[in-house]
Amino acid sequence: MEEKQTEISTLGEFGLIDRLTKDFPLKNESSKLGVGDDAAVMDFGDKEALVTTDLLLEGIHFDLRYVPLKHLGYKAAIVNFSDIYAMGGQPKQITVSLGISSRFTLEHIETLYSGIRLACEIYGVDLVGGDTSASTTGLVISITCLGEAAKGEVVKRSGAKETDLLCVSGDLGAAYMGLQLLERENRVGEGKKDFQPDFAGKEYILERQLKPEARKDIVAMLKENGIKPTSMIDVSDGLSSEVLHLCKASGVGARVYEERIPIDYQTASMAEELNMNVVMAAMNGGEDYELLFTVPLSDHEKIGKLKGVSMIGYITKPELGAAMLSRDGNEIPLKAQGWNAFPQD
Amino acid sequence: MEEKQTEISTLGEFGLIDRLTKDFPLKNESSKLGVGDDAAVMDFGDKEALVTTDLLLEGIHFDLRYVPLKHLGYKAAIVNFSDIYAMGGQPKQITVSLGISSRFTLEHIETLYSGIRLACEIYGVDLVGGDTSASTTGLVISITCLGEAAKGEVVKRSGAKETDLLCVSGDLGAAYMGLQLLERENRVGEGKKDFQPDFAGKEYILERQLKPEARKDIVAMLKENGIKPTSMIDVSDGLSSEVLHLCKASGVGARVYEERIPIDYQTASMAEELNMNVVMAAMNGGEDYELLFTVPLSDHEKIGKLKGVSMIGYITKPELGAAMLSRDGNEIPLKAQGWNAFPQD
Repeated sequence: MEEKQTEISTLGEFGLIDRLTKDFPLKNESSKLGVGDDAAVMDFGDKEALVTTDLLLEGIHFDLRYVPLKHLGYKAAIVNFSDIYAMGGQPKQITVSLGISSRFTLEHIETLYSGIRLACEIYGVDLVGGDTSASTTGLVISITCLGEAAKGEVVKRSGAKETDLLCVSGDLGAAYMGLQLLERENRVGEGKKDFQPDFAGKEYILERQLKPEARKDIVAMLKENGIKPTSMIDVSDGLSSEVLHLCKASGVGARVYEERIPIDYQTASMAEELNMNVVMAAMNGGEDYELLFTVPLSDHEKIGKLKGVSMIGYITKPELGAAMLSRDGNEIPLKAQGWNAFPQD
Repeated sequence: MEEKQTEISTLGEFGLIDRLTKDFPLKNESSKLGVGDDAAVMDFGDKEALVTTDLLLEGIHFDLRYVPLKHLGYKAAIVNFSDIYAMGGQPKQITVSLGISSRFTLEHIETLYSGIRLACEIYGVDLVGGDTSASTTGLVISITCLGEAAKGEVVKRSGAKETDLLCVSGDLGAAYMGLQLLERENRVGEGKKDFQPDFAGKEYILERQLKPEARKDIVAMLKENGIKPTSMIDVSDGLSSEVLHLCKASGVGARVYEERIPIDYQTASMAEELNMNVVMAAMNGGEDYELLFTVPLSDHEKIGKLKGVSMIGYITKPELGAAMLSRDGNEIPLKAQGWNAFPQD
């Protein structure tokens, strides 16, 4: 055994990845972009190939007490597609590896697969491989997605420039409030037979949590309107974390206007009901799978005409750091308080 | 909950995969070959892209009481490279996803990664992405490997023809006997302080279990000698299982001569010591990561000159099925008794 032992929770997920992958310089001609973006990029002649992967573990990423298996399968596929769209590409193939504990039957796994299949049908993706195995505890889902982009179409995290506009699709915080709702109803109903959870008027936030979509439409709309983002990332860990990723990769700072953060009525109303700060849900909630991107200031008018895209701020010099400009005029530095894969006790 | 519930162990791993993937026809132009071979094939203009994935779970695929973490990392990478070589391709990129329970420290994971890094360096593969997360129990390793092959170079499982020669690289059964040795020494040493396992004269079988190699050299040698296999597969689950896979995919039968199965002296000696049948270890042991392939009968002379390749049998009409011709002249039908990912109690 080694002498020094460092708890992984002291590094966090991104610190761990940085540490583990720093000694892996890319050597192959076809390897164009490695660790550190939504997907890796490989050069294949006239096309770029993209690859991304997500590992979902029962008890860490999902709770089968309130997530139906079909929805879980759908979401497990979608989160990978979202990473490919965030590179400006199109998802084309997935591999699905499953670790299955003995409490799952064939019918359970078929239900899970029916969700994966539905996502593949809707997004035009082929299932091309995978691996299945027993697992000693719980369900393990590992999905890898391959995508394609035409030469020059790939959008990295690293291209944001000073004065660029910071834009986001859809609205934020809804998936997180949907999770709060599911957890509350699960607590309330625990041990009660025939308990019927009350989801009336909250369908949107539930759907955002249980059946998120990847923003294929946004990638297409930007292209149709002749807009090529200078940088892009998908919002999986909360707006704060993603703005910080863009700033770090691009070597810039950013300002986000609190009042411009798009929030749905149901998200706000659920937050009020639970006495939570809705802006914090948007900043740190995560699982929105919206696209956060930057465009040159000169695209201001074009972006203004797009439905479902909000201009929420702008890119600054790196010295200014990343901050939110609050409604009352304060500058609040952004922190990556999003979902942490390695929680400290 | 569904009405009918089928235990997964009644289907086995391959039955489960068949069942789950039967409703996924390939639709994308770039998807050339899906589930059912060592790797999937994608068309990328002048090259073919290959993808394969393996999920390794603690307590199912490895036991950290006798597998050092560095060896585990090395082997986890190698098993993926082997699948790419088995398609006639070259591995180029991997993604590594880890689920890590709280008993692992940064130093443990760095040790695991050092093995992955070593394998990548030796085989010329780039690490391009991955995912890390906490896990509630044990270590989860999911590796996906991308490879490349020139147009027309891909070798599938499905091309074997009647009268083709059946060939295998290296020798078989050693990794399995290495595992038996490790398990024996672990039992013997259990609870004994300062116990020193006795591995003298057994280095080869230990290395085959703990630090297997992928047969990059065989793929290169075949090419140099102008031999293109008609079908190929890597030996991961034992010779029986792999011959059956080739026969099923190619719609043919096969005969394997017992006396021609290549077995190392240490493998035979360990089997004798443990009173086990060494041919059964070769047929059903698995984890050899050798290449099993077929060539036209006309390549007989060329193959005969190659070092480290054995001609072990031939391909027959499908009606004859797959069987081993024993030393005493009997025909023993092959059964896939190899390692089962879903053991029945």
